[in-house]
Amino acid sequence: MKAIAVRPGAGSPEVVDQPVPEPAPGEALVRICRVGIDGTDYEVIEGSHGGVPDGDDRLILGHEAVGVVEDANGTALEHGQYVVPTVRRPPAGVETNDYFERGEPDMAPEGEYVERGIVGAHGFMAEYITSPYDCLVPISAELAPWGFLVEPISITEKAIEHARATRSAFDWRPESALVLGTGSLGLLTVAMFAETLDYERIYCLGRTDRPHPTIDIVERLGATYIDSRETPVSEIAGAYEPMDVVYEATGYAKHAFESIDALAPNGVAALLGVPTDWSFEVDGGRLHRDLVLHNKALVGSVNSNRRHFERAVDTLSSLPDWVLESVVTGVHGLEAVDRAFPEATARVAAAGRASTAASDDDTTIKTAVEFTGI
Amino acid sequence: MKAIAVRPGAGSPEVVDQPVPEPAPGEALVRICRVGIDGTDYEVIEGSHGGVPDGDDRLILGHEAVGVVEDANGTALEHGQYVVPTVRRPPAGVETNDYFERGEPDMAPEGEYVERGIVGAHGFMAEYITSPYDCLVPISAELAPWGFLVEPISITEKAIEHARATRSAFDWRPESALVLGTGSLGLLTVAMFAETLDYERIYCLGRTDRPHPTIDIVERLGATYIDSRETPVSEIAGAYEPMDVVYEATGYAKHAFESIDALAPNGVAALLGVPTDWSFEVDGGRLHRDLVLHNKALVGSVNSNRRHFERAVDTLSSLPDWVLESVVTGVHGLEAVDRAFPEATARVAAAGRASTAASDDDTTIKTAVEFTGI
Repeated sequence: MKAIAVRPGAGSPEVVDQPVPEPAPGEALVRICRVGIDGTDYEVIEGSHGGVPDGDDRLILGHEAVGVVEDANGTALEHGQYVVPTVRRPPAGVETNDYFERGEPDMAPEGEYVERGIVGAHGFMAEYITSPYDCLVPISAELAPWGFLVEPISITEKAIEHARATRSAFDWRPESALVLGTGSLGLLTVAMFAETLDYERIYCLGRTDRPHPTIDIVERLGATYIDSRETPVSEIAGAYEPMDVVYEATGYAKHAFESIDALAPNGVAALLGVPTDWSFEVDGGRLHRDLVLHNKALVGSVNSNRRHFERAVDTLSSLPDWVLESVVTGVHGLEAVDRAFPEATARVAAAGRASTAASDDDTTIKTAVEFTGI
Repeated sequence: MKAIAVRPGAGSPEVVDQPVPEPAPGEALVRICRVGIDGTDYEVIEGSHGGVPDGDDRLILGHEAVGVVEDANGTALEHGQYVVPTVRRPPAGVETNDYFERGEPDMAPEGEYVERGIVGAHGFMAEYITSPYDCLVPISAELAPWGFLVEPISITEKAIEHARATRSAFDWRPESALVLGTGSLGLLTVAMFAETLDYERIYCLGRTDRPHPTIDIVERLGATYIDSRETPVSEIAGAYEPMDVVYEATGYAKHAFESIDALAPNGVAALLGVPTDWSFEVDGGRLHRDLVLHNKALVGSVNSNRRHFERAVDTLSSLPDWVLESVVTGVHGLEAVDRAFPEATARVAAAGRASTAASDDDTTIKTAVEFTGI
C-alpha cells in the first residue's frame, strides 16, 4: 500500500510503499479516507519536533484522520463504520499505564506515551492502518468527509474544558472571548465560540492585510478581527474590552504573557502554542500582581482524549457547512501530494530545489490528503 | 473608645479616640478581642497599598479580627457569641452588587468593593465595631484566642480551592507541594498541607540561616526546608522533585515565573503575592512551551469569602496547638502597641526617630493587638 513518510529534517514528505498492516487481537483494520495536515506535521517534516519509532529511519506522517472499518477483527466495531483514530498510545512494549487506564492519555507526561504520526509511532497517512478498537471514535457517514477536523477540534474541546475548570470554584459568567491566531485551529475555535458556546462578543487576532479569506471567515462568524500590527495583545483590553477568555494558538511566546493584560478580572487564558526558546523582558511584577489581584488564571493544554474526540464529533455536526468549506482549502489525492503540503513545497522551492507544482499560496488555510473517496 | 489608626504614609500607627459605633438595622455591635497584623497592614502604613474612606484623612487598621457579640441588635446572632468578621463590603453608598449577592465578594473587581482596614473602609482595630450580621462568622470560645488567624487561613482556603479547581477536569493525584515563603501565611499553609491535606511530601522555601524558629516549625511539621540562597526556585525540581502544587506567598515576582519550572507535569501554582512593578528577562519561549506540553496551570488568588472563613474555622480547629503557639510570637495590649508593629517601629527607628521600645526582632513571626481578654 501507499503511505506518506518523512525522514525528519529532509524538508519534504515522500510517498512510499508499505505492507498492509495486520490487526492484532483487539485491533481493527481501517481503510483511511482523508488525513488533515497541520503545523505539527511541518515541525515533524523540518525535524524540530517529534521523532521516528525506535529502530526506524522514517516516520509515516498524519494524526488527523478519518477512515472506515475494513475489518472489525472481532471487536465491537462494524465493517463500514466511519471512525476517527485518537493519537496517543502507550510507549512501545508497554501495554498500558495509569493515564491510559483512566482514559486520560492526554495527561500523561513525556515518556509515558507515543503519538501516532508525531513521535515514536507511525501515523495515519497510509491506505490502511490498524488501531485498538477503543481508540477509534465513530462518526456518521454524513460527517465523514470532514472527519479529519475532529482531532483539531478535540484539541480545543480539551483546552476549553480545562479553562472552564479553572473557573469552576465560582459563578463565572464569561461574555467576551479572544482567539489569538488565524490558522485553521484559531478559525475553528472562533467558529466553536460563535456556534456552540455562549460568548456574546468574540475577537480574533491575526496579522494579514485585507482582503483575506481568514478575515472574511472571522467576520462572517460575527467576530471582530484585530490586526496585531495595529493593536498588540497588551493593548486589546483598552482598545476593545478586557476578555473573559483568551485562547492562544499562535505559538508566539510574548502572547502567552501579554494575554494576562488582555484578560478581564476573573478571566482565563488557555495556552496551546509550542514555541522554541526565546528570552525577552517582561514587567514580571505587574503581571504577577495583576494575576493575583484580579484572580486571573493561565492554563496550558496539549493533546486530547477520547471524550474530547466524542465531543468534537458533536461540535463538528453543529458547525455550518460554509465554515468547513471555507477553512478546508484543499483536499488532494496522492498524485498531488505536494499540493497538500504547500509550506514544505514552498520551503523546498525557496531552497532552490524547485518543484514546478509548488506555489506559496497564502490563501491556503487547511489541506488534507485523500487516500479513498468517501 | 480606643482605636488604632494610620495616616497612610505616616510610617507608624497611632492610638486614637473614637465614638463607639451604633449598629444599623441588620448589623450587630461586636466587642473586639484580638486583631492580627500582616504584610498588608505594613503596606497600608507605608502608603503603598490601600486607602482611607472618602472624606477621611486616616484609616482605622485591622482586617484579621476576632470579637464577641455585644449587641445582636435583633439579628440571628446571640450575645456572647465569638465571631470573625469578613473583610470585603460593598462600596460606600451601595447596598449590594452581583458579587455580594452571590456570596462571592472575593471575585469582585476593583471598584465593586471596599476592604475593611485596607481600602475605603475602617478596619477592626477598635474596642467596638459594627458589621452586617452575615459578615460575622461564628467561632467557638475555645478557638477564639486564635480567631485572628481565621482570615489568613481563609486566604489559603480560597487559593487551594481555586488551584484544585484548575485540575478538576482530570484525575489529579497530587503528592508533592512547595510553599514559597516562611512568613506567617507560608507557615500556616505548610501546617495545613501537613495536617489537613493529603500531600505526602511538603517543602518550604525561605532564606534564613539556621537555627531559626521558622525552620524549626517547617521541620517539626515534617516538611523539608529549602534555602533559596542555595537552591533557587528554578532548580528545585531537579534538586528535590517536581512539585504537584506550588503556593507562592513571597510577593517576589520572579518566583511566579520560576514556579513553572518547579512544577511537575499537570501541576498548578497558586500565586498570592502582590509585588510592585519590576521588569526582568525570562525565557518566555521555554516557559510557554513548558506550560503547554505539560498541562501546567497558574492561578492568581486574592481575598476570600464567607465560605472560606467557615472552612478556615474548621482548619484552625485541626491545627496542633504548638503550631499556633509557635507562629504567634506576640499578643500585645494597647499600652504596647509599638511591640505589635515591630516592622513599622523598626523602620521608624531606622529613620532616626527612634522609639526606645523598638527592636528589630527577626524571630517575630506573627503578632496581634489585644483589645479585650478572652
